[in-house]
Amino acid sequence: MIVPVILCGGAGTRLWPVSRESLPKPFMKLADDESLLMKTYARGLRAVDTLGERAGAVLTVTNRDYYFLCKDELALIGASVPGTFLLEPFGRNTAPAIALAAHRVAELHGPEAVLLILPADHLIEDDAAFAGAVGRAISAAREGYLVTFGISPTAPETGFGYIELGEPIGEGVTGATRFVEKPTREVAETYLASGRYCWNAGMFCFTAGSLLAELALHAPDVAAAAKTCWEGTVGREGATVELSSALFSLLPDISIDYALMERSRRVAVVSGSFGWNDIGSWTAVRETVPADAQGNCAVGEAVFVDARNTFVMSRDRLVAAVGTEHLMIIDTPDALLIAPPDRAQDVKQVVSRLKQLGHEAYKIHRTVVRPWGTYTVLEEGP
Amino acid sequence: MIVPVILCGGAGTRLWPVSRESLPKPFMKLADDESLLMKTYARGLRAVDTLGERAGAVLTVTNRDYYFLCKDELALIGASVPGTFLLEPFGRNTAPAIALAAHRVAELHGPEAVLLILPADHLIEDDAAFAGAVGRAISAAREGYLVTFGISPTAPETGFGYIELGEPIGEGVTGATRFVEKPTREVAETYLASGRYCWNAGMFCFTAGSLLAELALHAPDVAAAAKTCWEGTVGREGATVELSSALFSLLPDISIDYALMERSRRVAVVSGSFGWNDIGSWTAVRETVPADAQGNCAVGEAVFVDARNTFVMSRDRLVAAVGTEHLMIIDTPDALLIAPPDRAQDVKQVVSRLKQLGHEAYKIHRTVVRPWGTYTVLEEGP
Repeated sequence: MIVPVILCGGAGTRLWPVSRESLPKPFMKLADDESLLMKTYARGLRAVDTLGERAGAVLTVTNRDYYFLCKDELALIGASVPGTFLLEPFGRNTAPAIALAAHRVAELHGPEAVLLILPADHLIEDDAAFAGAVGRAISAAREGYLVTFGISPTAPETGFGYIELGEPIGEGVTGATRFVEKPTREVAETYLASGRYCWNAGMFCFTAGSLLAELALHAPDVAAAAKTCWEGTVGREGATVELSSALFSLLPDISIDYALMERSRRVAVVSGSFGWNDIGSWTAVRETVPADAQGNCAVGEAVFVDARNTFVMSRDRLVAAVGTEHLMIIDTPDALLIAPPDRAQDVKQVVSRLKQLGHEAYKIHRTVVRPWGTYTVLEEGP
Repeated sequence: MIVPVILCGGAGTRLWPVSRESLPKPFMKLADDESLLMKTYARGLRAVDTLGERAGAVLTVTNRDYYFLCKDELALIGASVPGTFLLEPFGRNTAPAIALAAHRVAELHGPEAVLLILPADHLIEDDAAFAGAVGRAISAAREGYLVTFGISPTAPETGFGYIELGEPIGEGVTGATRFVEKPTREVAETYLASGRYCWNAGMFCFTAGSLLAELALHAPDVAAAAKTCWEGTVGREGATVELSSALFSLLPDISIDYALMERSRRVAVVSGSFGWNDIGSWTAVRETVPADAQGNCAVGEAVFVDARNTFVMSRDRLVAAVGTEHLMIIDTPDALLIAPPDRAQDVKQVVSRLKQLGHEAYKIHRTVVRPWGTYTVLEEGP
């Protein structure tokens, strides 16, 4: 029994104005009109199916505010059963989410059931390669390993954590020597050159039993609080389980990497490159759209006149770019972002500024069209 | 009797996407929410009033397709009587429009009545200076001159025609030595340096009688066709006169400058600088909006993060510009333009491309919002 567990978390402020608090990154639709969440759901089930394994109902761990959104999304891909849900009253990082998912799966399917943990906001293009990696991960998980998926790096990225690979454990599976936080550019370059490092993709595979046992060993506080929370949860046998604020607040805000993976000796790495893209910023989204000879690409209606390396994302408006170079144009019904690609990381500053100004556009997508001729210029921040 | 005559013509393709065939430049609203047409109407009456002259009802010469638009606009500024209209079945340049306006005014108020011809798509900031110029023009017109208004040049513009000033005729009024078409940059620089040239603003002042007499002398074909057209027009005594296609098509497509002003010996020039702006492109619109210390300016809601010299015009959407430099962002409900200011003249290429593609956005403002997730990328033209 393999249970895909989708971690459907929050914000993604670098993807404003498409991603906002009320409709964050997992719900963002790419050029093919599928959201990252829809893709992740289908990908998990497809991988398990390809391997000839038996899949349990997908368990989506998300904030209760996103429950109906999730169900709506999953209904769109014809998921006749939209899987099961573990609803958090607020965000508490990955360790609590994974620990509670493990309790849920252990209780429902026994400690030998395998969890396949998938963040809802990544893109994977090569399904076959991914299924192969999942197959190796499941085998290692059944041997008691906590498997983390490593992505073979293609550039000295400074936005990801890295895993230093250890000795081989089996076919395409190695140990992990250490986990390192986001490195500097120089360090990232040595990692890339060495061939011994891969990116930490935040995807995992383990049995419910191994996860809970290793957690009890290396993060007893998290383990104890998760147990208390789970056992105190009313209606935990249902398809949709709502965690209580009082019990969930016992859990510390900590990542699974920090709480467990960096400490456990049972960690194994399945690494590969399967067209993984973390959709971390608009430049990452741009990579998913084919460009023309001038480097221009568009999702939506665009007219390019002497434009170069211009990326347009616009769902309901015609965009004309005249003589633009190295520019990203991201349009939504109520807000528009214009920035060169090398400022993609600074988009979050817009969100901070809007928060500071109390402007609702940091949070929600407005659908109200203001009357023609109402003007406001927002002040520069301090 | 002074009759302000507004020439409310077409397109303004360099101001796409705000100006389109169905809602061209005269109807474009500036930051103060007044259209250029509204401003022109009010300016004409105000100047006449300031001078203590008696104004006749404003005569707007426009395409019949813009009739109701004009009336709606003029109702907005509380013009209890929206003036009178001369409706053309199609555009035929300025000579036919002015000749027919002169017939209309002569018939209604006699040949001594003065016409003050004002294009509907210019901006004038200094009302007092303008009224002064109009006063001098009226005096010269009553002496039988065909007065053209010259704008003292402030830069070697290549987008305007120039008038070489002649001998003084009276207080602030000179003759015209010659009219020159749009010059090259080098030539424009010598004009600017000489101090003897001014820009041809397309504003005129003359009595109905002088205009018709001089036209008969220098452009007999235009004069004859205009007479035939006017005298054959049914209902020409009404407040709104619709010209018939059959009769109007007798008139040649020719400008008043070419047909008459360049040939007549009765031309006088009243020159001055009264904050004139022809709103010829987005850079000209930008000049009407105050900028902050970084050179950024906005009409509508804008957030600037490390932006410089960025101009935002957006009526119903929040615009965030991150790290942009020398950029113009012009947003409308159905189309968006992004271009650096030095490409302002090339905006018309977008309109050509859209026409070529048969895309309605060159012509009309769509109000239909397409369903979420409908994508089309417009092909590059040949």
